[in-house]
Amino acid sequence: MSNFSETLTERLRQGAAPAVVGLDPRPGALPAALLPKAPPTERILAFYEEVLPLLARHVPVVKPNIAFFERFGAEGFAAYEATCRLARAHGLLVIGDIKRGDIGSTAEAYADAHCGLVDAVTLNPYLGRDALEPFLRAAQERGTGLFVLVRTSNPSAEEFQSLATQGGHSLAQEVARAVHGWGEEVSPGTAYGLVGAVVGATHPGEIAGFRELMPRAWLLLPGVGAQGASVADVRAAFDNEGFGGLVAQSRGILQTFDPQDGTWRQRVEEAAAGFQQDTLEVSRP
Amino acid sequence: MSNFSETLTERLRQGAAPAVVGLDPRPGALPAALLPKAPPTERILAFYEEVLPLLARHVPVVKPNIAFFERFGAEGFAAYEATCRLARAHGLLVIGDIKRGDIGSTAEAYADAHCGLVDAVTLNPYLGRDALEPFLRAAQERGTGLFVLVRTSNPSAEEFQSLATQGGHSLAQEVARAVHGWGEEVSPGTAYGLVGAVVGATHPGEIAGFRELMPRAWLLLPGVGAQGASVADVRAAFDNEGFGGLVAQSRGILQTFDPQDGTWRQRVEEAAAGFQQDTLEVSRP
Repeated sequence: MSNFSETLTERLRQGAAPAVVGLDPRPGALPAALLPKAPPTERILAFYEEVLPLLARHVPVVKPNIAFFERFGAEGFAAYEATCRLARAHGLLVIGDIKRGDIGSTAEAYADAHCGLVDAVTLNPYLGRDALEPFLRAAQERGTGLFVLVRTSNPSAEEFQSLATQGGHSLAQEVARAVHGWGEEVSPGTAYGLVGAVVGATHPGEIAGFRELMPRAWLLLPGVGAQGASVADVRAAFDNEGFGGLVAQSRGILQTFDPQDGTWRQRVEEAAAGFQQDTLEVSRP
Repeated sequence: MSNFSETLTERLRQGAAPAVVGLDPRPGALPAALLPKAPPTERILAFYEEVLPLLARHVPVVKPNIAFFERFGAEGFAAYEATCRLARAHGLLVIGDIKRGDIGSTAEAYADAHCGLVDAVTLNPYLGRDALEPFLRAAQERGTGLFVLVRTSNPSAEEFQSLATQGGHSLAQEVARAVHGWGEEVSPGTAYGLVGAVVGATHPGEIAGFRELMPRAWLLLPGVGAQGASVADVRAAFDNEGFGGLVAQSRGILQTFDPQDGTWRQRVEEAAAGFQQDTLEVSRP
């Protein structure tokens, strides 16, 4: 397995856009003509079979959100696995948006199962380092990229993440400091290393501060498009060479068409090309 | 679907112990004679088929931890679903230890999928209320019990959960206050309502404080046994009538035997009976 961060850097150097397309499958938003009578998980896979090669021409990374698959139970879980494999077969890097964080003596096997399937994962920090330990080991041993939830893009993210601590920081800033420390352990002195962070693009004023706290972390920036942020809002995540940020968008790419519209492939292609262009521009000042 | 809290209260009134057995399947710890050549997920199910009716004689609730199943991918997920159904068929209440917390417009379907399978779930609060919203609705509409991670039992739980905020509380205490508020919304004035909390038994000195902050919440208390706490450590979670606390134990019940030992059923039965006795004693002063 290759090193997520090195592979990503190499692709960006070769001209790829710092763009991530989220895969959040909603059966109601799939093209109506695609296997109309099949079960939802089959329709989802049929859609990705068409869409992933198309996306691979415009972006280097996709991010399937396991929650949207898990709602279909074990079959949905199988569809998540198939989607990850399919994306990698098309040369895409895959960030498994799993938001996991658990402990236990088989946590290692658990991390292995997830990390064997994708190139990177998202993780929840509430339980502290323990819960991330097996994933930190996966990063070190197999080059898996980690994106720790620091400041999420949802409206109620502030409820706890913005709580001010007695040290004068917010909780999110405390987590950011820890993320920097974990990155220094796993890939010391590397910009950008294997321990990254999720920082919502919906809080543009805070991005520069998080960049400072985590100078060597890839920042995964969701919230562009449907959630209200613009690509320009994330400029502070990028360095002078255009590295360090990864802009994520979901609905704005894969739900830009009417399910009844036969020209949906063209709509997706246009949206992906526009996203590629926008992220290239914002990352290279 | 019945109301988790009412059903639990009724069972405790009828003499059940406030005891929860965690189901954390580790293939290496299963009885060696049980389907020795079958795949791990089949061996796990064979074990629970034998063990669940036995547990049902001693405790009212089991808590399968989905992470231990998920390490086997889609098949593991199917085994988790089968385990939940099997446990309910034996009259056990099931707390799905899923530690989820995610957002998105299908979060409701996601919550429905999990809540349709079990009587209660564990949830991670880092994303704030948004992420719990569909589960709060499931509580209101179908009586699902919720256990929000407040103070976990792992060694590095303190890293963020014990951070002192400017309001003079720890992060865990702030989450506890929110849990109380959510409970008042979902089942106002009810002791004990549908919004509960996970409070590790490994921090006995803090339990009374959490009880005060969440006077109407069931406290799910893991960490007894292998993690170092004793049943007596959790006394402060219980009221004068023996309600309010749920002591959870995993390895101490289902991994008390040598896999080669043919008398494992007896070992499990003894451990479950002892756990029943201990929790009854500690809850009824």
